[in-house]
Amino acid sequence: MDANYNRIAGQSLQRLAGLSDGLFAVAMTLLVLDLRVPVLASVHGERDLGQAMVALAPRLLMYLMSFATLGIFWIGQQTQLNHLHRGDRELAWIHLGFLFAVSLMPFSTTLIAEFLAYRTALLLYWGNILLLGALLYAGWKHAGHAGLVRSDITADLACAVERRILIAQGLYAISAALCVIDTRLSIAMILLVQANYILAPRVFGLDRL
Amino acid sequence: MDANYNRIAGQSLQRLAGLSDGLFAVAMTLLVLDLRVPVLASVHGERDLGQAMVALAPRLLMYLMSFATLGIFWIGQQTQLNHLHRGDRELAWIHLGFLFAVSLMPFSTTLIAEFLAYRTALLLYWGNILLLGALLYAGWKHAGHAGLVRSDITADLACAVERRILIAQGLYAISAALCVIDTRLSIAMILLVQANYILAPRVFGLDRL
Amino acid sequence: MDANYNRIAGQSLQRLAGLSDGLFAVAMTLLVLDLRVPVLASVHGERDLGQAMVALAPRLLMYLMSFATLGIFWIGQQTQLNHLHRGDRELAWIHLGFLFAVSLMPFSTTLIAEFLAYRTALLLYWGNILLLGALLYAGWKHAGHAGLVRSDITADLACAVERRILIAQGLYAISAALCVIDTRLSIAMILLVQANYILAPRVFGLDRL
Amino acid sequence: MDANYNRIAGQSLQRLAGLSDGLFAVAMTLLVLDLRVPVLASVHGERDLGQAMVALAPRLLMYLMSFATLGIFWIGQQTQLNHLHRGDRELAWIHLGFLFAVSLMPFSTTLIAEFLAYRTALLLYWGNILLLGALLYAGWKHAGHAGLVRSDITADLACAVERRILIAQGLYAISAALCVIDTRLSIAMILLVQANYILAPRVFGLDRL
Repeated sequence: MDANYNRIAGQSLQRLAGLSDGLFAVAMTLLVLDLRVPVLASVHGERDLGQAMVALAPRLLMYLMSFATLGIFWIGQQTQLNHLHRGDRELAWIHLGFLFAVSLMPFSTTLIAEFLAYRTALLLYWGNILLLGALLYAGWKHAGHAGLVRSDITADLACAVERRILIAQGLYAISAALCVIDTRLSIAMILLVQANYILAPRVFGLDRL
Repeated sequence: MDANYNRIAGQSLQRLAGLSDGLFAVAMTLLVLDLRVPVLASVHGERDLGQAMVALAPRLLMYLMSFATLGIFWIGQQTQLNHLHRGDRELAWIHLGFLFAVSLMPFSTTLIAEFLAYRTALLLYWGNILLLGALLYAGWKHAGHAGLVRSDITADLACAVERRILIAQGLYAISAALCVIDTRLSIAMILLVQANYILAPRVFGLDRL
Repeated sequence: MDANYNRIAGQSLQRLAGLSDGLFAVAMTLLVLDLRVPVLASVHGERDLGQAMVALAPRLLMYLMSFATLGIFWIGQQTQLNHLHRGDRELAWIHLGFLFAVSLMPFSTTLIAEFLAYRTALLLYWGNILLLGALLYAGWKHAGHAGLVRSDITADLACAVERRILIAQGLYAISAALCVIDTRLSIAMILLVQANYILAPRVFGLDRL
Repeated sequence: MDANYNRIAGQSLQRLAGLSDGLFAVAMTLLVLDLRVPVLASVHGERDLGQAMVALAPRLLMYLMSFATLGIFWIGQQTQLNHLHRGDRELAWIHLGFLFAVSLMPFSTTLIAEFLAYRTALLLYWGNILLLGALLYAGWKHAGHAGLVRSDITADLACAVERRILIAQGLYAISAALCVIDTRLSIAMILLVQANYILAPRVFGLDRL
């Protein structure tokens, strides 16, 4: 009879899902704290307020981009966990690392919104996305090796999950590389990649990327 | 055997409910961060503090209005999800869009509380409500087309859900239109509409709107 | 066949529990944002930092008091919901009102921590507790009338729940009334009442209050 | 027939898990609010921004340490709750005390990040960890005495849970004691202890600590 603590620790998929939903919810809402209402004294009429709102648009776009990023990874993590029949301590820690990367997203977003034209900001933002992808991938690989995957999941399906992460990260890496030309080109490309994953248009096989 | 990632992604209604509860909870609590305790040095007696508290009343009313708005839409979303037997990727994204609109609510509320007499602020606040309603409606329509609705839901009930959203949005639009006279008239009307939906009085058929 | 939206809306006790757990969690954590680390430049040695920490003690005590208040009402609400077999729209709105009072708690706590000697602050803090109690009581009464209570709950048990809320509110009212002598006396009495409810000592029938 | 409120209050393990997941999620995300993006006006080129990011590294390390601490205790609490078949009012209050200690973690983290070389800060940080461990231990002891533990849990397993907490707290106490030499030595040792618990390497019996 083996009473090793590590064999019994952190096995609840439900608690992992609960913590993840909470952390994603907080991170998604904290993004918007970045949107600041103009100072009352600086506004002298509807025109001033309208202009202040228009000036917020680029920041709102960055916020929307990060909300979409978090949405894509929330769906990705949910899909992974839905396909497991149990968890273990290692899986819990890989996903805690993943949630750490989620909690950094409000910082990365403020950074890129403030320093739109800086490659340093863009590459750190991309680093955050890369970390999310790498840990999601590691979670799926570990689940496969440790026998956590539900028995009704075919090898084809398991490959589809893996392939999705790798292609998405490839597209994000290409987007980031475009910053040698212009950081705004990188951002535009990231937005296009996200729009594709959200809308999954059934043309040219785009929904199969 | 088709192993398309998009067919298996984001199907958990429970995770969607978990994320939604978390995000609504954070947004509802962030509203109040707007309520500021007066600076200690500016208060020289009970009278000063009492006056400072009375001065906070309009802001508290705006906060209450937004809490009620979020409550109405939380009940609306819950009612929709309770009537589905499964989810899909498209439904998840429509609801993520809906949650994006929820996360904007603290910003819209601060804006209208700070710029009470500005039509720009009022119309943006209304735009936020409109976005919430439009996405909730889109979610229900999609659920109908994609066969996600539980089989025990009658066509009458499905229509009642749809009708409720459309009439509510109609009343909000009329409220917003009143800002051509005075923005405070719009706010009063929004508060009346909300009181009606919360109290659902059984007179004049008001509970059937 | 009656397709009234209000008959089918907001019935999920699980979603209500989910929203409540989220909102209590956020409110409980926001309390601590009030605890400020001293400014680096103002600290010139261990002694300075030690003194700054000691100076934070009264604020920490107020925070602990509010955490205890929220804990008592979280247990109270949980106990109520555990005894229901289903929810309805009215119950959802009573509990949303209750959660509104929860979301005001960080504000009331900052207020009383900042204006410890002011009756205005103390009475508003008490008003917040009263609102929590009144809405919890209203929820239980409504559940009884609307037939939401589980059938295995005896009349004795139903009375015990009701009695607990009334006695607790009586003790809080007495505590608040003590502010005619000194607000610090009120706070000390509130802390005693809370300690009694948390520890439930089995002497002098104190655990039966 | 005994209708004592205290016998029926706070028994839901699911609600306790829900509140805990929410509170851990908020505390984990609030840590990062401490990471500040540099002021736009102070940055005149990629080099400035790069240096500002490098300057944030020690703070990021402290944040990572606290995220790991919270992760370790989240897994510890989950493992405890997974092994219970029901809760009671006392267990709920012990865990509310535990969650209070969780909610203090963002404050303790900011304190140690700001005053890295101060023993006062280090000892308060350690005090926070000690409080977490003591309450988790108290919860497990109470569960044993009150018959809340699942019947399939062997005495060996129960001991393993207890032993894990005691050894971990011993290692944390040794780490804290090292501050008589240098606070940075304490921090390095805490990071090593955490790395060991996260990675659980199967060499020298380290995974059995």
